[in-house]
Amino acid sequence: MRIAIINGPNLALLGRREPTIYGHETLESITARLEARAAGLGVTLTHFQSDVEGELVTAIGRTLGSCDGIVINPAAYTHTSVALRDAIAATGLPCIEVHLSNIYQREEFRHTSLTAAVCSGIIGGLGALGYELALEALVALHGNKRS
Amino acid sequence: MRIAIINGPNLALLGRREPTIYGHETLESITARLEARAAGLGVTLTHFQSDVEGELVTAIGRTLGSCDGIVINPAAYTHTSVALRDAIAATGLPCIEVHLSNIYQREEFRHTSLTAAVCSGIIGGLGALGYELALEALVALHGNKRS
Amino acid sequence: MRIAIINGPNLALLGRREPTIYGHETLESITARLEARAAGLGVTLTHFQSDVEGELVTAIGRTLGSCDGIVINPAAYTHTSVALRDAIAATGLPCIEVHLSNIYQREEFRHTSLTAAVCSGIIGGLGALGYELALEALVALHGNKRS
Amino acid sequence: MRIAIINGPNLALLGRREPTIYGHETLESITARLEARAAGLGVTLTHFQSDVEGELVTAIGRTLGSCDGIVINPAAYTHTSVALRDAIAATGLPCIEVHLSNIYQREEFRHTSLTAAVCSGIIGGLGALGYELALEALVALHGNKRS
Amino acid sequence: MRIAIINGPNLALLGRREPTIYGHETLESITARLEARAAGLGVTLTHFQSDVEGELVTAIGRTLGSCDGIVINPAAYTHTSVALRDAIAATGLPCIEVHLSNIYQREEFRHTSLTAAVCSGIIGGLGALGYELALEALVALHGNKRS
Amino acid sequence: MRIAIINGPNLALLGRREPTIYGHETLESITARLEARAAGLGVTLTHFQSDVEGELVTAIGRTLGSCDGIVINPAAYTHTSVALRDAIAATGLPCIEVHLSNIYQREEFRHTSLTAAVCSGIIGGLGALGYELALEALVALHGNKRS
Amino acid sequence: MRIAIINGPNLALLGRREPTIYGHETLESITARLEARAAGLGVTLTHFQSDVEGELVTAIGRTLGSCDGIVINPAAYTHTSVALRDAIAATGLPCIEVHLSNIYQREEFRHTSLTAAVCSGIIGGLGALGYELALEALVALHGNKRS
Amino acid sequence: MRIAIINGPNLALLGRREPTIYGHETLESITARLEARAAGLGVTLTHFQSDVEGELVTAIGRTLGSCDGIVINPAAYTHTSVALRDAIAATGLPCIEVHLSNIYQREEFRHTSLTAAVCSGIIGGLGALGYELALEALVALHGNKRS
Amino acid sequence: MRIAIINGPNLALLGRREPTIYGHETLESITARLEARAAGLGVTLTHFQSDVEGELVTAIGRTLGSCDGIVINPAAYTHTSVALRDAIAATGLPCIEVHLSNIYQREEFRHTSLTAAVCSGIIGGLGALGYELALEALVALHGNKRS
Amino acid sequence: MRIAIINGPNLALLGRREPTIYGHETLESITARLEARAAGLGVTLTHFQSDVEGELVTAIGRTLGSCDGIVINPAAYTHTSVALRDAIAATGLPCIEVHLSNIYQREEFRHTSLTAAVCSGIIGGLGALGYELALEALVALHGNKRS
Amino acid sequence: MRIAIINGPNLALLGRREPTIYGHETLESITARLEARAAGLGVTLTHFQSDVEGELVTAIGRTLGSCDGIVINPAAYTHTSVALRDAIAATGLPCIEVHLSNIYQREEFRHTSLTAAVCSGIIGGLGALGYELALEALVALHGNKRS
Amino acid sequence: MRIAIINGPNLALLGRREPTIYGHETLESITARLEARAAGLGVTLTHFQSDVEGELVTAIGRTLGSCDGIVINPAAYTHTSVALRDAIAATGLPCIEVHLSNIYQREEFRHTSLTAAVCSGIIGGLGALGYELALEALVALHGNKRS
Repeated sequence: MRIAIINGPNLALLGRREPTIYGHETLESITARLEARAAGLGVTLTHFQSDVEGELVTAIGRTLGSCDGIVINPAAYTHTSVALRDAIAATGLPCIEVHLSNIYQREEFRHTSLTAAVCSGIIGGLGALGYELALEALVALHGNKRS
Repeated sequence: MRIAIINGPNLALLGRREPTIYGHETLESITARLEARAAGLGVTLTHFQSDVEGELVTAIGRTLGSCDGIVINPAAYTHTSVALRDAIAATGLPCIEVHLSNIYQREEFRHTSLTAAVCSGIIGGLGALGYELALEALVALHGNKRS
Repeated sequence: MRIAIINGPNLALLGRREPTIYGHETLESITARLEARAAGLGVTLTHFQSDVEGELVTAIGRTLGSCDGIVINPAAYTHTSVALRDAIAATGLPCIEVHLSNIYQREEFRHTSLTAAVCSGIIGGLGALGYELALEALVALHGNKRS
Repeated sequence: MRIAIINGPNLALLGRREPTIYGHETLESITARLEARAAGLGVTLTHFQSDVEGELVTAIGRTLGSCDGIVINPAAYTHTSVALRDAIAATGLPCIEVHLSNIYQREEFRHTSLTAAVCSGIIGGLGALGYELALEALVALHGNKRS
Repeated sequence: MRIAIINGPNLALLGRREPTIYGHETLESITARLEARAAGLGVTLTHFQSDVEGELVTAIGRTLGSCDGIVINPAAYTHTSVALRDAIAATGLPCIEVHLSNIYQREEFRHTSLTAAVCSGIIGGLGALGYELALEALVALHGNKRS
Repeated sequence: MRIAIINGPNLALLGRREPTIYGHETLESITARLEARAAGLGVTLTHFQSDVEGELVTAIGRTLGSCDGIVINPAAYTHTSVALRDAIAATGLPCIEVHLSNIYQREEFRHTSLTAAVCSGIIGGLGALGYELALEALVALHGNKRS
Repeated sequence: MRIAIINGPNLALLGRREPTIYGHETLESITARLEARAAGLGVTLTHFQSDVEGELVTAIGRTLGSCDGIVINPAAYTHTSVALRDAIAATGLPCIEVHLSNIYQREEFRHTSLTAAVCSGIIGGLGALGYELALEALVALHGNKRS
Repeated sequence: MRIAIINGPNLALLGRREPTIYGHETLESITARLEARAAGLGVTLTHFQSDVEGELVTAIGRTLGSCDGIVINPAAYTHTSVALRDAIAATGLPCIEVHLSNIYQREEFRHTSLTAAVCSGIIGGLGALGYELALEALVALHGNKRS
Repeated sequence: MRIAIINGPNLALLGRREPTIYGHETLESITARLEARAAGLGVTLTHFQSDVEGELVTAIGRTLGSCDGIVINPAAYTHTSVALRDAIAATGLPCIEVHLSNIYQREEFRHTSLTAAVCSGIIGGLGALGYELALEALVALHGNKRS
Repeated sequence: MRIAIINGPNLALLGRREPTIYGHETLESITARLEARAAGLGVTLTHFQSDVEGELVTAIGRTLGSCDGIVINPAAYTHTSVALRDAIAATGLPCIEVHLSNIYQREEFRHTSLTAAVCSGIIGGLGALGYELALEALVALHGNKRS
Repeated sequence: MRIAIINGPNLALLGRREPTIYGHETLESITARLEARAAGLGVTLTHFQSDVEGELVTAIGRTLGSCDGIVINPAAYTHTSVALRDAIAATGLPCIEVHLSNIYQREEFRHTSLTAAVCSGIIGGLGALGYELALEALVALHGNKRS
Repeated sequence: MRIAIINGPNLALLGRREPTIYGHETLESITARLEARAAGLGVTLTHFQSDVEGELVTAIGRTLGSCDGIVINPAAYTHTSVALRDAIAATGLPCIEVHLSNIYQREEFRHTSLTAAVCSGIIGGLGALGYELALEALVALHGNKRS
């Protein structure tokens, strides 16, 4: 099973950016944790991060035929990007949206998600652990579909 | 570590109620899966289900001093209950909100959550697995706090 | 044919409560009229009234497998209860929503119904007669389905 | 007792128009059923249908002094016509608004009624039977007023 | 100077319709008063009343080249008719909108006017006198333009 | 008959201020025209202008017992002043609201009037003539009440 | 004079729940203070607390004929409960709504009250003292009505 | 192939009405151009224009069984008419909505279309050419369906 | 302890202005009652009333350093004045907002308060007694702070 | 005549992406059809597609001085991009907005277009044919301007 | 060049009022800094401060013919005053709106400005320096206009 | 002191794009003016312009540790970009938002700024001079912080 891990804008700054909201972990350490967990689950990961909405769109499009699922943290684009929504829908793949922080505890405009409606599930507020749980969930969904 | 599992209205009908939205699993089988996972994690669970908003409020209040965390599926009350929000906030405990279905794929009025803002995290759209992931997350949060 | 008559909050006060809006008839006299009409139609009725939203949810859930239709006056919960909406949808039974008063002649917040969308029909503004017409309609719908 | 039956736009197409929403009955067969029921109730009916909002306004105005009640299905004008609302109010007659379909199960803009606030009651979602129940209700209201 | 007096839906019922809101005067007596005042001002009037929005549109269109000004009471269509707005704008004539009642003392939806923005002025709440004042105003505007 | 003419903020600048919207007439020439018309009608006028909302409130309060009617141009306060609304209502006098320009042809926030709902009538878009017509209307209303 | 003291959801936790918002006093100490003040005023109190909206509705309904006034703190239900509003209106008794905290200093959704419109008065932000002032006010209103 | 060309309110004034918005062409010249193009495409046209919403509804209803497609310019009714929407949906025919002007460059209330949702496509802002392109599109859609 | 009593627009008319809403008491009699109660509590009062928003702002500013608390009835400015809100916040003093009528029983725009959010508490609907209770509350708050 | 064909996000996936909404044609086949039609019209085309909003902005800017018209399908950016709107306005060129699907038949947020207001026209719901019609329209507009 | 410096409500309290928001500088020290800078620029200043909206309106009106530009800090009236907007527009002078704090970091209702639309520019969040920059900008605008 | 000058979409077209709104100066001449002023202030500038939102995000992220302040003109992204807001907040640097035009004089959707809330200040409507004033302000803020 192949899963694409896709991270949106400003996430390359993780660990240096507003740690009271986003925690001290870096994107590199999250990637390492995910690789360890993926190994245990027998899953192959690809990683992509970009600050550019359209590059994320292109990356999602590339999963068509090359992946079995997506874990995405669209970050700021969660609340504004119809293009990401269209890209996820276009893949037809199971996708889980992850947020490090609890978007319901922040500004009003972060309480909505344009992308969640085309995802299978959403996990928020659990920090880096959220990515790992998303991985576990995709594997479980994959198992259900095959059985 | 003691965790309260609290389920809201109509969830006693699980398995018999609109299976295309909520799946075929019953509340009993979810409880069994949670007990199995809790055993592996060394956690003690208490279970409470009610269709009555105020009984859920009272049950949440009872966790004060008797529990270390809450997993709650407020179901329909997610979108309308200030009382549940106040009850969760009153406990000061880490709490994870779980939804079986993806609330963003349903009616507009289900896209908001009054309770999420006072929870640590939210997991939705992953069916019964969501409860298990919430359990794992609470244990991880608990470990972080103690260390 | 078995039909559940379900009445919501404050309806036990009928006849004593704001008669210019709700009329002078009591819930007991409405029940008597319905029983008389049901006898003529060869229908068996069960009656339930509660001021508690969750008890109404539970009562609706109990009709699953024990009734062929529901007449419900959700009263104040009409405008605020997602839980009742979910309960009615869960039964999959034909259900008719009845209001004694014309909700469109009252405060703005009474002009919407969260429950009507999951009912077969709605009858409002006709006082106690509305319950009788709902009974007649359920019997007709039942006849159509069998033929 | 004389009652005007007034039908709004597109209802002449009944039976041929979107039968999954409006059913297979034609306006002619509804008229026949109403005449049969009216005969049993000792009521005289007049019938009027128009696609033109203003002709409906004029027809309602003509009931002043010539009728004792109105059964109206304003169809699409329900949601947009202040003119029909003014016409019904101008008559001062008991009026019952009927909808074949359940307007709450359709587009958001059909969930409001400009005309219902000046009617005695509303019946929706019960197909052609709704007209018959409206007839019965007007007769009952008439009897109450006289006694 | 030729002025078209155009009256909208339900105004043929004036005097018989809700006199507490619209007064006891009939459209005929208003017409007589206007003719008397017009004679004094040396103005020729044409009169048109219809309950049909589109007939009002056509009548307004006919003033192009045949009239020097319009007094219009769009009644219920004031709040809903883009078609009347377009028709008035198409004439390019000075037009004064008259309302018998004070629309700001009534339901919220009567507080807006789609047609006022394409009129020269608006007079409301002064009963039949409003038409006479509108006449005087059009004559004054006409005088200004010629001088 | 005694009538108070009350003018709101920025109206002392009339004739010098944005003449394409407000015309070239000054407040002094409007006053002169009104005095001439009042003489013909046998009416005594008092005049008050202030840029200060509260001074307008006080002036309106002073009409209690000393005047028989009010002509007011609240200007910018039309759209924002609950205090003026309360003051006009407190007098219980017939009051006509006048606007020089057509408020419906300007910014959205000028399309509403907080004060109109407590006035007898409204006249707008007719320039200085509007004051004169308001005077005529108050005299007519006064005559009706006495007869 | 008999007055019912009715407390809504989460108030049994007072003193233990978020003391920076709700203070350190318990519901028991408030009750004691009220009893002391009531004794001085010659008033008999009954006390009721429930987390269940419908039980509060029933309790309010029971005051019909057994009480002369109500002091109610609907807590979270203030902002969501049409049922409590209907219950208070049904009693026809003078009722004063009390809030421990200032609802205008908290989340937007707490700035509205569905119940206040059917109460005589509202007291908020004064902590436990608010109940005592409400008691004094009800006694004064009662005295006025008898005199 | 038979196509109905249906034009709404104020379009009979084309060429004389606000030419900066609608251009100098008349409805007659548009009709002539359409007939020429239809001849080239081997299509038969019927033409209907009315200012009356309900007459447009009736005309659309008449296409049932007599036409293979509709080109409609609902003009002002685009933004307000549920009745036209229902009529177009009732026919089940491919329908293309045409606007002479670009509705997005005009007032806010012209930015929405109630009818577009039941049409196959929409063409706007291209003047009379829009009708011709709509004709070409209907022929192409017709060809696709048959092949 | 020194307390400023500040009254807003139209309150000088009390007793003469709409007595069904505001009661028959005058501002003078309220002042007398407050002086009597203040004497019993050992409190010194200063009184200020103005119809002018800015004069109220100035008066509130003057309490800085000269008073220990404020009782304010902002009247109409409650719903529109950011300036009063800023002035109250600037003083940093405990302030209680009083309304004679129950603002929730009146027009929609009176249901909000811009000033309440910067006050300690709010008392409404209790007529002149509200001022006295506010006085008692300020004294109690003052005692708590000192102890 | 030189025309730029500009395609927005996810359109490179055409033919593989949700064919029930977007059809089976690929961007390549659309390009081929356009080239064929352009050849017939004597028009030179340039083609640009990007998923990146800012690259589309840059491409539009490059048409300044190098093109005579633009055909753009902004896809998802239609509903969110002020930057594209500014870019199109900056060119001052005739531009036609094309949508493959009918945006009015989809989610509410797709019913608005930020870019349409700065385009000459809009064509939607006609699939790939829409591009060809846009080409024909631009050529016609160009001819009109030159003549 | 003559420039009017106009300060709105509560600004006389500067330095004593909420220093975390507004800083420690007083209006006097700001005035001194502005005079120093004006001397360097060869500009004459006049200063006006009032808490009264209408006095600000009058002061702005007085600049007509006596000043070449305005620096205004409307403070709380920024968000509510149509009268100030009208006054600024009436002068036709270049005007720069200054805010000490960043209005976008505060309550939602401070995010809008009624006055900014009639000003040349806006400077906010830079404390007292903002006034100095506004001065520099007006001088530069004045130079551009003369050259 | 090092300051980053960051310019958003379409600004490379300055001087060629809609000069009535944006003026005739090019980005190059603005850069030259800024370099001249920076030299006088002893400040080092870096310049970045991109049409791509995500490239602006990356550029802002790069200022972390390499700059002491930011001057940004987010142009069209001002109103839509949560990503830019997050990037600016992530730097923790003083940032001043500059707009060439007065955003309050343009379309409604330009009246809000998502980025302003995380900036120190905002300067708008002053053309290229705004950048220079922003530079001066950053230097002043920097001086204050060090002193």
